[in-house]
This record gives sequence, structure tokens and C-alpha cells, in this order.
Amino acid sequence: MRVLRVRHQDKSFYASLLEDQVVCLDRSLSYDRPIPLSEIQLLPPVAPTKVVCAAVNYRSHAAEVGREVPDEPVIFFKPPSAVIPAGQPIVLPRASARVDYEAELAVVMGRPCRNAAPDKVAAHIFGYSCANDVTARDLQKKDGLFGRAKGFDSFAPIGPWIETEVADPGNLAIRTLVNGEVRQEGDTSDMIFSVAELVSFISRVMTLYPGDVVLTGTPPGIGPLAAGDEVRIEIAGVGVLINPVVAEEETGAGELIQ
Amino acid sequence: MRVLRVRHQDKSFYASLLEDQVVCLDRSLSYDRPIPLSEIQLLPPVAPTKVVCAAVNYRSHAAEVGREVPDEPVIFFKPPSAVIPAGQPIVLPRASARVDYEAELAVVMGRPCRNAAPDKVAAHIFGYSCANDVTARDLQKKDGLFGRAKGFDSFAPIGPWIETEVADPGNLAIRTLVNGEVRQEGDTSDMIFSVAELVSFISRVMTLYPGDVVLTGTPPGIGPLAAGDEVRIEIAGVGVLINPVVAEEETGAGELIQ
Repeated sequence: MRVLRVRHQDKSFYASLLEDQVVCLDRSLSYDRPIPLSEIQLLPPVAPTKVVCAAVNYRSHAAEVGREVPDEPVIFFKPPSAVIPAGQPIVLPRASARVDYEAELAVVMGRPCRNAAPDKVAAHIFGYSCANDVTARDLQKKDGLFGRAKGFDSFAPIGPWIETEVADPGNLAIRTLVNGEVRQEGDTSDMIFSVAELVSFISRVMTLYPGDVVLTGTPPGIGPLAAGDEVRIEIAGVGVLINPVVAEEETGAGELIQ
Repeated sequence: MRVLRVRHQDKSFYASLLEDQVVCLDRSLSYDRPIPLSEIQLLPPVAPTKVVCAAVNYRSHAAEVGREVPDEPVIFFKPPSAVIPAGQPIVLPRASARVDYEAELAVVMGRPCRNAAPDKVAAHIFGYSCANDVTARDLQKKDGLFGRAKGFDSFAPIGPWIETEVADPGNLAIRTLVNGEVRQEGDTSDMIFSVAELVSFISRVMTLYPGDVVLTGTPPGIGPLAAGDEVRIEIAGVGVLINPVVAEEETGAGELIQ
């Protein structure tokens, strides 16, 4: 099942996708018929309390950036305020001269998870989505810590939906296209720590709640985005996440609101 | 005013503190009298969507850890799952051999804040609280990034209340006592970036929402905690935050729940 979160008229709700229609999953709203996609606005498919990310988790990407393969995962956070849905623009902040795409498989938790062994993780996962771990590369190098570089508003596109039926998350082709050109190409079988190992590791540090998101690292081929680009993350069997790219000036986000 | 979040019988609500009683601030609950402190359970005073932290922000602490004074703030996140109230135990994880206290002034946002100039920040702040940026020092050094070292459940004690009347957050004595012995002692006037500068900087990266928390760095004197300790963060004019310290084994948190 493909689960979306949508807005229709003044209501926001989860829905399942059926070709070009969506079926409301909130029975209290008593929709008696599917709603055409053209009538809804897409929201991010999750509203996480946290987004936990693996730093370097593909063998060939570790080689690309000259890092040793770590003996255990290294994790950081993106703030929920960075999450945007498919279709909404990634805003290049004026503070950075180099903003990169990073295609990642997103794991969406379905049940609270604390101290779960790897072989018990699957029962806690609701499904999978596509994510773009957008990164201000220059600020990442300057700061050392990733809070700013990966924390700007719009730097966590996730979507378009949550795919609940993924037979093997360790065997999915993943790639990034910018303006139709392939830039990243990999397979989740290249992960250093599997989805189950990563989620288990994180759950030994902190409680994961339903809707929380784990980003599982990016394959090789990272590179920059420019205003006017269209960036497309494809994960076989999961979905296709497309976002336009704009400069901060164009959105007015640079204006002081106070 | 001192604002608490409390649980009474089966209800959770914000309340103001009046000596040894609390007054419910949620009129929909129609309490017609104050409730004795002895009848309520203290909750964390905030339920943030994110906790944004400044890495090194006291001049004398920068000297202590041999870091240069940065030209702009460096930020990282603690996950909301780490937040605990006054009185609840800090749990020392088995994965770490060295867990430190770090006393910090916590800023609690009251209004959405994006791209605010420093002189406009005050109107967006609801109040101030005491926080302990508990840190697994060994894992911080090993990982480089702070996600794990500062992200364990219970590693963000905040409280006991939000003090809404703080005349000058840049002139507050702050100290840590462990088992009654003074370990950290400083003053917020030693901050490299003021509360207004920090919040403004963060708001140029990401939207801050009501209830979001900004931790403003720690004064010199960082050091380890041991099971059985009582750690006490005092900020003059703000409050006193006390938490006991226990080892992971004692709580059963180390058991696999699945």
C-alpha cells in the first residue's frame, strides 16, 4: 500500500493511493468516495518527532569521500522543520555557496522501538519512502558538526508516499537525476549497516516513536544543485521524489519577519 | 511567572506556580482551586519539536577545551526523546564509560521565529529554564558527530519550570553542584554569542516554533557523573534543576523490549 498524507479542502489526513485517486484512511472524516489526485494537496507523508540520519553508510560512498568504513554507525539529526513534501521547492540559502543532493532510503517507524534486536526491527517499521538529505557542503566543512549544514528549512524532502510493502530493503536500486541526468547510482545492498542493524543501533540509544524517520545514508555521486534544477530521487519499488530548486531570494524567505 | 507542565489524575496541563500550589492555566479544564504540589506529577515544562544547541559558547569553556572562539555559532540537535523533567533520573548507558553534566541556560520559544534580527528576538521568547546537556564524552570523541553522545534517552533534563520574567539573560550566575559540591561556576555574561545573537542565527537557518528550546552552551568545569550522584543546575533568577543519576541496569531500560 502507498500511504500519503494530504490536505483536501480544510482537512489533513492519511490516505492510500489508487491510481489517480486517493482513499481517505481516517474513518472519522466519513468520505464515501475516493478523491481525485487533482483535488488534493500533497503533505509530507510523515510528521516525525525526529529524523535520525546515518553519516556514511555506503561502502562506495565511504571510498568516494576518503573515509574508513566505520565499526559502528555514526548518527546525526535533521530537524522536523526541514521536512517538505514532493513538489515543494528546496531553497538554496544565501549563507551557502554549495548545496548538494543526497539520495537516501527513508525508514518510517510504525511502533515505539527501544533496544530492539536487529531481527526484531521489522515489526516496528511501517514502511519506506524516498528522501533527499540536502546538505550545504561548505558549511558542513566549516562547522564540523552538521546542525546548520543539514538543518535549513526545506533540506529534508521526503515522499511522495510511504510504501508499506517492501520485500527486502537491502536490495533496492537507488539513484538521483538532476534535470534528467543520472548523478547518483547505487544499491542498498552496498550499505555498511543494514536497515535492521541501523534501526537496532539507534534504538539502543533512544526511543523511536511512530512516524519517526531514519535516513540510511547516500550512495556515491554526491554533487551540487543550482537554482532552476529539478532533482529526482528514484528508489525501485519505493517511489520517485521530485523537487524543484530555487534560490532563497526568489521565495522571500530571506525577509525578516520580525 | 513560573510555568510548569504537570499531570494531575489523568490530565496533563500547563500551570503556574504559587508557593506550594499550582494554578491550572487551561481554562477548559475548569479547576476552581489551586492544586497542592504534593498531588501533581511534574512533566518537562516544554514539549519541543526540536532542541537546538550551541556547541562552545562560553569564552572560558572554549579555553578549557582548547578551542578557538568561533566567528559564528556552531549548532547541533538533541532529540525530543531525550527530554526529562526535574526529579527524573539521568540514565548512564552501558555503551559509555564517561558521562558528563553540562549546565546550560535553556531558551523556550513562544512564537514562530524565522529570520529574526537580534533586536527582534525577545518578542519571540516565552521564557527561560535550566537544562543539563548530558554528554557521553567518550562517544562524542569517537563519533566526531554528537548525535549519539548527546542523544540518549534522559540526556536532556529541562526544568523545573519556565521563568517568564528574566530581565537580562546575559547576566545570570550559573553553576552545577554534584552531591552538594560546586563543579561548574560561570555567568551568562561570559557567552560568546548572546541569547539574542544565537536565536537570531538559528532563525536564519530554520523556523523555530513555540515550545522549541535553544540550549546556549556550558560554562567551564565539565566533569563526569556516577550512578548514585545527585546533579543540581542552578541559574540565578531562573530556577534549580535537580536530577538523580542511575546506571542503565538499574532501570531495566537495557532489556530488549522486542
